[in-house]
Amino acid sequence: MSDALSAPAALRQACRQDAFRRTTAGQCDGFVQANLMVVPAEAAFDFLLFCQRNPRPCPVIEVVEAGKVEPQSAPGADLRTDLPGYRVYRDGRLAEERADVVALWRDDLVSFLIGCSFSFEEALAEAGVPLRHVEACSNVPMYRTSVATAPAGRFRGPLVVSMRPIPAALVPLAVQVTGRFERVHGAPVHVGEPAALGIADLSRPDWGDPVEIRPGEIPVFWACGVTPQAAALASGLPFCITHAPGHMFVTDLANAALAR
Amino acid sequence: MSDALSAPAALRQACRQDAFRRTTAGQCDGFVQANLMVVPAEAAFDFLLFCQRNPRPCPVIEVVEAGKVEPQSAPGADLRTDLPGYRVYRDGRLAEERADVVALWRDDLVSFLIGCSFSFEEALAEAGVPLRHVEACSNVPMYRTSVATAPAGRFRGPLVVSMRPIPAALVPLAVQVTGRFERVHGAPVHVGEPAALGIADLSRPDWGDPVEIRPGEIPVFWACGVTPQAAALASGLPFCITHAPGHMFVTDLANAALAR
Repeated sequence: MSDALSAPAALRQACRQDAFRRTTAGQCDGFVQANLMVVPAEAAFDFLLFCQRNPRPCPVIEVVEAGKVEPQSAPGADLRTDLPGYRVYRDGRLAEERADVVALWRDDLVSFLIGCSFSFEEALAEAGVPLRHVEACSNVPMYRTSVATAPAGRFRGPLVVSMRPIPAALVPLAVQVTGRFERVHGAPVHVGEPAALGIADLSRPDWGDPVEIRPGEIPVFWACGVTPQAAALASGLPFCITHAPGHMFVTDLANAALAR
Repeated sequence: MSDALSAPAALRQACRQDAFRRTTAGQCDGFVQANLMVVPAEAAFDFLLFCQRNPRPCPVIEVVEAGKVEPQSAPGADLRTDLPGYRVYRDGRLAEERADVVALWRDDLVSFLIGCSFSFEEALAEAGVPLRHVEACSNVPMYRTSVATAPAGRFRGPLVVSMRPIPAALVPLAVQVTGRFERVHGAPVHVGEPAALGIADLSRPDWGDPVEIRPGEIPVFWACGVTPQAAALASGLPFCITHAPGHMFVTDLANAALAR
């Protein structure tokens, strides 16, 4: 196995041994990182249906059934220990942050791995599209919009988008490059006109950090993986587990394999 | 509303009044037709997961939850009456064929509408790719392969493919045209070499009718919507309902809307 292939397994091992507790941004270049959402089996159909109905914000990489903790996208991994940080929610409210969730695990928990924008950001950078939040070493700004997702069972709520300021001449390239990544958010959902999405002030994101928009740049909006998480928490599920923000699950899948 | 737009609603109305009991092949040009699979709620998560894990053979157009019979893809429709024919299975065996399933309906039934190849065949024909089974007014030949689907819960089984003989020079065009229809089977899964799929004799399909393969033509194989149906029946579900073969549900969605 080459060094590049072994990197995700090594990172997961470090998480398991509590030797890695930071954000996974910038780690394991070339490999798919995923949001984690763990829900009780009784809510799993509705949550999977929510994802099926809202594929842009909720691109399912893999579902790991109740009774299992090893994803096919990361042989040998254990979803209870191999992320650098977890959040536990009870009745829709943050109950605790933990380094692992072994002690809390139940046989009825179903795990969803949902794609994240790290996959297409790598392709944007390679294509020469500058990414302001990466240059600034900050988190991408994310906004609740006035666009409703398609509800499923108890799950509903607004589409959440991430925003990247793109030089006007590069907007078509940014659309084309990310459009190849349909399995991880795909093409932007909106170009320019934040007010049309119900976003009053770009300098005040609902999650992440604000970024400067320079003259000649257009704010471009992509569907964001915070959408299903926000819907799950708003539903007041009695119990669920997520990754801690930015502390993603790193799979053995190549980002390139998600492009078409 | 134009005549073209009203056609699916008129066909569904004719089904509801028992005035249309034939195959829907060739009806309502331009509109998406769908396979119907109705399963009890206790099996719905596993079936949706089976579809998620096998998107090529199981492209979900829409899921209609328990307690509902009106799809969003066909406002005003009733899935219990608006197909020209139904099959009812008990314990994995065909129990009866019916013109409607109103009397059998239960509040716990979840309905899956799964895309079918009619959508991309229209695009192939428009691109000038000849379709032998259409010329012959027969059903497309379908074959059980030696390729396993990704199982989910009780659902598992072989990939089923449909085969169309394509002149060698048109194979690339056929790949590109159908590749645009990722939401309805997409590009072929295999070109030539039936033995590599475990198909011993193309003249003996497992479903549908055999077609002639002329000199200079290559057998091209697409993932087929019979795959999920075969998996559901093989699982021995206590109860399920499907469309009768060729008697599809006609939606108000345009085929063109499924292309990218």
